[in-house]
Amino acid sequence: MSAGFSQLDDRGRLRHLITLDGLGRDLLEELLQRAEQHTSTPGEVPARGDTLRGWTVAILFAEPSTRTRASFELASVRLGADVINLDMALSSRAKGESLLDTIWTLQAMQVDAFVIRDAEAGLHEQVARHVAPHVSVISGGEAHVSHPTQGLLDALTIRQCKGGFERLAVAIVGDIRRSRVARSAHRALATLGVPEIRIVAPPEMMPDAAEYAGARRFESLDRGISGADVVMMLRLQHERAQGAEPTDLAAYHRDYGLTAARLARANTQAIVMHPGPMNRGVEIAPDVADGPQSVIRRQVANGVAVRMAVLAHLAEARRKRAP
Amino acid sequence: MSAGFSQLDDRGRLRHLITLDGLGRDLLEELLQRAEQHTSTPGEVPARGDTLRGWTVAILFAEPSTRTRASFELASVRLGADVINLDMALSSRAKGESLLDTIWTLQAMQVDAFVIRDAEAGLHEQVARHVAPHVSVISGGEAHVSHPTQGLLDALTIRQCKGGFERLAVAIVGDIRRSRVARSAHRALATLGVPEIRIVAPPEMMPDAAEYAGARRFESLDRGISGADVVMMLRLQHERAQGAEPTDLAAYHRDYGLTAARLARANTQAIVMHPGPMNRGVEIAPDVADGPQSVIRRQVANGVAVRMAVLAHLAEARRKRAP
Amino acid sequence: MSAGFSQLDDRGRLRHLITLDGLGRDLLEELLQRAEQHTSTPGEVPARGDTLRGWTVAILFAEPSTRTRASFELASVRLGADVINLDMALSSRAKGESLLDTIWTLQAMQVDAFVIRDAEAGLHEQVARHVAPHVSVISGGEAHVSHPTQGLLDALTIRQCKGGFERLAVAIVGDIRRSRVARSAHRALATLGVPEIRIVAPPEMMPDAAEYAGARRFESLDRGISGADVVMMLRLQHERAQGAEPTDLAAYHRDYGLTAARLARANTQAIVMHPGPMNRGVEIAPDVADGPQSVIRRQVANGVAVRMAVLAHLAEARRKRAP
Repeated sequence: MSAGFSQLDDRGRLRHLITLDGLGRDLLEELLQRAEQHTSTPGEVPARGDTLRGWTVAILFAEPSTRTRASFELASVRLGADVINLDMALSSRAKGESLLDTIWTLQAMQVDAFVIRDAEAGLHEQVARHVAPHVSVISGGEAHVSHPTQGLLDALTIRQCKGGFERLAVAIVGDIRRSRVARSAHRALATLGVPEIRIVAPPEMMPDAAEYAGARRFESLDRGISGADVVMMLRLQHERAQGAEPTDLAAYHRDYGLTAARLARANTQAIVMHPGPMNRGVEIAPDVADGPQSVIRRQVANGVAVRMAVLAHLAEARRKRAP
Repeated sequence: MSAGFSQLDDRGRLRHLITLDGLGRDLLEELLQRAEQHTSTPGEVPARGDTLRGWTVAILFAEPSTRTRASFELASVRLGADVINLDMALSSRAKGESLLDTIWTLQAMQVDAFVIRDAEAGLHEQVARHVAPHVSVISGGEAHVSHPTQGLLDALTIRQCKGGFERLAVAIVGDIRRSRVARSAHRALATLGVPEIRIVAPPEMMPDAAEYAGARRFESLDRGISGADVVMMLRLQHERAQGAEPTDLAAYHRDYGLTAARLARANTQAIVMHPGPMNRGVEIAPDVADGPQSVIRRQVANGVAVRMAVLAHLAEARRKRAP
Repeated sequence: MSAGFSQLDDRGRLRHLITLDGLGRDLLEELLQRAEQHTSTPGEVPARGDTLRGWTVAILFAEPSTRTRASFELASVRLGADVINLDMALSSRAKGESLLDTIWTLQAMQVDAFVIRDAEAGLHEQVARHVAPHVSVISGGEAHVSHPTQGLLDALTIRQCKGGFERLAVAIVGDIRRSRVARSAHRALATLGVPEIRIVAPPEMMPDAAEYAGARRFESLDRGISGADVVMMLRLQHERAQGAEPTDLAAYHRDYGLTAARLARANTQAIVMHPGPMNRGVEIAPDVADGPQSVIRRQVANGVAVRMAVLAHLAEARRKRAP
């Protein structure tokens, strides 16, 4: 966040959700608590509400994403909003300020919230600075920087499975350097009181020393997950995997892939997480992905609940701000 | 269907609809009866209901299709479901099991039914084998193998126009060998008691001898439609038509195109059907497509009704299975 | 419109909206009045209704358009309609009459209104001639010929800002020759009684002498906007701008770009309009686009209201025609 910009309103409620940086423990816990009310058992009618009745949510995703787009769309619709989907590369349109013209145009059509995914760092804040006071910007992913709803759903899943955050050792494994998932998970978990966060990566995927304050760094996966309560695997980035030789992928799997044998080094009650989509056989072995310690599908279910919670919070905060 | 897999539940109700093979006459007639209740006169408010209130239907079409996709979408929405559309080539994603990961991800977001069109034979069953007990898979077209809702809408249209199936001669004309439409129509009509089914095709488009048991085979269109009550023309497949020379298309029209003169050989009350989209001037002459014997648009209207009936049946069956 | 075709029904109400040509002042004023009821303040719940409950609106746009498509979609949804979006190049499909087959197919699925944007002049009328009596065709833009809802929203914006049309001088500036926006604005304003319409363009962008009867023509922007009450800037067409050298764009801006200095020649109360999307720094300077005289975002808001008004008018007229 730049100086002079806040995603909070005067009451300390969210006006936007662009990053988890700067959000306090109480606010995160309130969002998790609210998300719990939006979870429901698969096979039952999903949790619904009419908190967003009359709202229009515009989903603007420059990067393709089946899961995150669908998750936001369902979260919006199940709270009663109308949704419009727009496929557009916002950052490439940003020449001559046309990005903001697009936003202003949709705002004039009474869009209440913009869910934006874009590869340009800072774009979400730029939009948030220029929308009307009643309009919210929600990040669905920002470059390598931030993915706040992913961080929240990871935290919710850990809380559900572990009962809290106080005594946990959480290992995040993979391309930490380029991962917005890792950054938002680290931020959420540090704020919520996880005492031990470990990052595990080969040297070229390790973040700069200035980042991840307080985290322990490991180059060895075996040592990094030893005794961990939570093992969070990251996706080997598609753009890297494409250029990679099969031998490279095999080498990555050998050194940083989570197998059942490796997982045995973690706490016996450890849970395995992955933000999806998985490269099976690369960063995670199929039997681990589908095994009893995996909570990967629960993460997806929690994703809808967390997004409903964020949208409902934004709507309530707006109602309270209204004169 | 592979051994050990059934699309029916313990009560003999549909859990999925992947093929018409193995479905009994009573079940087909019940679906047609239910579909009748969902038909309505164009210009009046279309039949609606709330049988799917709270449901989420995911439409995953790997092959482009304006009409079938729209038909399923409208059928779902008019019964109160939320719909998410996903353009994705499922079969090409099937490496490393990521097809199932995509399905599981959407299922975790509480998708209740998947409508899938794909060019890979067997993919629908593969998905159906892996979804949760409350989730249904509906085929919107499977390779050259099966198109069950098309077979049902064809049967419904014939029953509406002819009052029944008992004394009919039905001629199916065109590229039978590669046609899922023909296979599903043949299955529906044979089950429903049509005594005479004829398949009419040039030798290279004729199916193997093991298929279409009981059907009479004709290479001559004139003889094949002589005295028929129903003439069902197939679309000359686009992928073939593209490579085809104009002279080939002209030759096909000369030998297998339905003209008014040829139609005169059929029963004077014969109806003309086509699954669409039509290649006018190739497999069917425009004046026949738009003539008084054509029921092609009625097929489209029945398509929505049949899909509503299938979805409503699936929802009812699920409710009865629930503890 | 061709001889023998009318977009009005026997009562003089709209059956279609393809052009503003031939529509009387009373009808236009009624549409504007109705649109006023559908405007609402950004930040409040947008105007809604259930006039279109049970309707299905199909949006078929061959040309990409974020804003007009979203505007029609939101107008439809906020009046209670179901919407299906179809991306298809209608005119290129028009071979062998497949355009009409597509329309008839959707009509058989009980689509009540088609919103069509296409680059082929005459296509909208061709469709309107062939739909069922209860079905409406609404133009979302037709080649260089017509953009009737844009003309209505421009008129509504002028009336709101100026209190009427009687004493106004309106200057339309830019590529008049290729602009459907200019044609529809001219038609609306001439019918509604604007006494002085000026068109301002370089010679190669000036329309033929037979068009724009009664309008004053200017090659000089300075003289053309002198004393004007309304300055309506047109977008420099993208297909032209792409081929254009930066020097050409700079020259266009120098000669025909609206700057603050130039705007000072207009009436001090003059409003500045633009149909969007803007080429900032080409036809309009950023400080003018965002300045106090700009009503560009209000045009967008009025666009939704006007489209709601047109849809509601069509639905009412249909109900009155029904036996």
